[in-house]
Amino acid sequence: MSFEITDILLEEIKVHVNNEQDATLLELFEDMHHADVAEILDEVNWDEAVYLVRLLDSETTSEALMELDEDVRERLLDSLTPKEIAEEVEEMDTDDAVDAIANLDEEIQEAVIEQIEDEEHKADIRELLQYDEDSAGGLMAKELIKVKETWTVAGCVREMRRQAEEVTRVHSIYVISKENVLLGRLSLKDLLTTSDTKTKIAEIYIPKVDSVHVDDDGEDVAKVMQKYDLEAIPVVDDENKLLGRITIDDIVDFIRDEAKEDYQLAAGITQEVEADDSIIQLTRARLPWLFLGLIGGVGAATIMGGFEDILKEYALLFFYTPLIAAMAGNVGVQSSAIIVQGLANDDVKGSISNRLLKEMLLAALNGLILGIVLFGFTAVWYGDFKAAMAISISLFVVIIMAGIIGTFIPLFLDKRGIDPAIATGPFITTSNDIFGILIYFWIAKLILF
Amino acid sequence: MSFEITDILLEEIKVHVNNEQDATLLELFEDMHHADVAEILDEVNWDEAVYLVRLLDSETTSEALMELDEDVRERLLDSLTPKEIAEEVEEMDTDDAVDAIANLDEEIQEAVIEQIEDEEHKADIRELLQYDEDSAGGLMAKELIKVKETWTVAGCVREMRRQAEEVTRVHSIYVISKENVLLGRLSLKDLLTTSDTKTKIAEIYIPKVDSVHVDDDGEDVAKVMQKYDLEAIPVVDDENKLLGRITIDDIVDFIRDEAKEDYQLAAGITQEVEADDSIIQLTRARLPWLFLGLIGGVGAATIMGGFEDILKEYALLFFYTPLIAAMAGNVGVQSSAIIVQGLANDDVKGSISNRLLKEMLLAALNGLILGIVLFGFTAVWYGDFKAAMAISISLFVVIIMAGIIGTFIPLFLDKRGIDPAIATGPFITTSNDIFGILIYFWIAKLILF
Repeated sequence: MSFEITDILLEEIKVHVNNEQDATLLELFEDMHHADVAEILDEVNWDEAVYLVRLLDSETTSEALMELDEDVRERLLDSLTPKEIAEEVEEMDTDDAVDAIANLDEEIQEAVIEQIEDEEHKADIRELLQYDEDSAGGLMAKELIKVKETWTVAGCVREMRRQAEEVTRVHSIYVISKENVLLGRLSLKDLLTTSDTKTKIAEIYIPKVDSVHVDDDGEDVAKVMQKYDLEAIPVVDDENKLLGRITIDDIVDFIRDEAKEDYQLAAGITQEVEADDSIIQLTRARLPWLFLGLIGGVGAATIMGGFEDILKEYALLFFYTPLIAAMAGNVGVQSSAIIVQGLANDDVKGSISNRLLKEMLLAALNGLILGIVLFGFTAVWYGDFKAAMAISISLFVVIIMAGIIGTFIPLFLDKRGIDPAIATGPFITTSNDIFGILIYFWIAKLILF
Repeated sequence: MSFEITDILLEEIKVHVNNEQDATLLELFEDMHHADVAEILDEVNWDEAVYLVRLLDSETTSEALMELDEDVRERLLDSLTPKEIAEEVEEMDTDDAVDAIANLDEEIQEAVIEQIEDEEHKADIRELLQYDEDSAGGLMAKELIKVKETWTVAGCVREMRRQAEEVTRVHSIYVISKENVLLGRLSLKDLLTTSDTKTKIAEIYIPKVDSVHVDDDGEDVAKVMQKYDLEAIPVVDDENKLLGRITIDDIVDFIRDEAKEDYQLAAGITQEVEADDSIIQLTRARLPWLFLGLIGGVGAATIMGGFEDILKEYALLFFYTPLIAAMAGNVGVQSSAIIVQGLANDDVKGSISNRLLKEMLLAALNGLILGIVLFGFTAVWYGDFKAAMAISISLFVVIIMAGIIGTFIPLFLDKRGIDPAIATGPFITTSNDIFGILIYFWIAKLILF
């Protein structure tokens, strides 16, 4: 399908780097796609990567740097001087430039900005650095093509040629007033199909254009762009003045990151980690949730200790605690996952009480089926009708409770403005384990004694 | 930010529909964005939705239909005649048209296709229906702009104007030979900035263009488009002939669906369901995993029954089974989630044995910390040094085992060509519960007796 980076190629590059064969290297990297350059930077060792970044022209490396994992990019930049970083940043679109330098030490960041030669680029980057990373302002780029409504088609094409130099991709052309107020858009297609070049832009532009406010949440921007299938959306301030634009590729990354975060939270991993992170990083992300599980387990053990008196007569009950805990956990995770996704996609409709009622019915149906199966098995296997009854009825009740908790917690968190995704995974499993075991022994005791 | 659908508006629409006030309705819906029309179709009742689809012009409703959930769309289409469906399909891009009719009964599908008036559209749809839904062929649309290398810029612009009528969005212009072999691309920007209209396309086009083969897997297409930040990619056959193109918006949906599927599998939900699906649908998606949990629980109970002889002396051990099971499950889910994501993003490098070794070290570190904490607590709380020792050492071993199983299973499934996402969630939790409890009692017995 496309270019493959082989071990042989990597070996060759390493040899050339170590022999400082710059001419050969430059030839090798000529015309290489920046995504492939990024892959190579990721595969060679540290010093080799720094050597390559210094050697290759910034046009190639600046784009390659943006393809790298954030932590790899940061470490690479740390090995460069502010002057060298500025050369890379000079080549980047403003939104990428800001992402690249956002996490540098403040002093270095300032030194880098100082070294940027293009004054407009410098000012744009300073402006973008002010916005919150997850807001529309933090996602937008300053590069866009804008034309004034008073221009003619010919003047517009001329001016666009100039602006297009700086803009990697032309999506829409925004039409503004003299005061930079966003009025509408002009599609390239329309511009192409207008044959009279003296036509005024005011006559052919589309006065309807979706926009987002600079302080809007990135997640909301993603939703609007997806809903209306937009490839770019302009960003405006309180006075509807055009500040920048957000393109779909930034949103794709945003969607992926969000999905990844939700998935990891559901699996009990707090920070964003990857398979190749260090053992210390991975431990830091995983241990807190395991501690939670440990506390839950000790809680469950304490509850069971409180029911020690029934141990002599009904040891069987104690054998079924892992089953009860597992079912409570599974049902809780299922219910919460459905709610969390529904909330993310904005399709949880109706009141909380309706939602809880539905989940209760659903859990009751599942609980009934599973309870009957378990009753059949335990009654036949142990020949103890009463104990089988106690275990199965408890299971039924525990499943209903687990479904309600699993539905309620994410809805509650969402109402309080907390990310409901935190409710899937260990949090719900642990609380359901404890509640499940408590209810189980209560009911069993009620039936058996 | 944009248009909001209020309850008042919905009520108004319902009244107009029930009074068959067509003129008022048409006025209300004039200029409304198709995504908003879709939202309204989703909110009103069935007959009202069908009424609206019949009333509004197909240009609006065809796009709105594509925004609806697949099952809602299918039910709506089922209420229309083949002739009416054909009118909607006529307005759709070929890729959407195929998605819309792919799941209709074969006879109805054929009847719909027969009614399509545009012969080219008809042939295109027939062609696309042959491809596998998840392949590049299944994702692509036939609408694209192609120009021949022998044309001049002026001829090209003229021809493009004609083609652009049919193409919603112009991304790239593809350059082909006389035999329809893909040669390269031409950006609109370049076309705009070429002032001499007599220049031949052959002189200005970019001979480098990424493409995918029609049989490539959709997931791979998504990866390439993301890696190279492409907004559209051409699809070719064995002879490099241009068949169609895939645009980024189709890939965004694909990425979201994939992420959703993985998330649901991790939460123990088999089929794609949503919060608003019926109780029966939800039960069908959830019950199989709960059954698995039930079997696991019965297995655990049976294992514990086998250790009944130590119950009299060390009841304590039995109180800690939920803790052991929970920790085994949590560690397993964490490990598998990291591997599953790594596999999905293609950044699991190195051999399986290295991966297992790393996970073992990681689990050992976590297990050591958690084991020491648990030992401290149980030794002080119960004053039974030996039992505390047995529980903590078992926890340590169980965590290591859980990490290994959680790492190995998804890697193994992936090697066998099975979606590794199935390994997160109930599958790993259940198997780790059973193994965990078994190991726990073995080790405890070894230490205590």
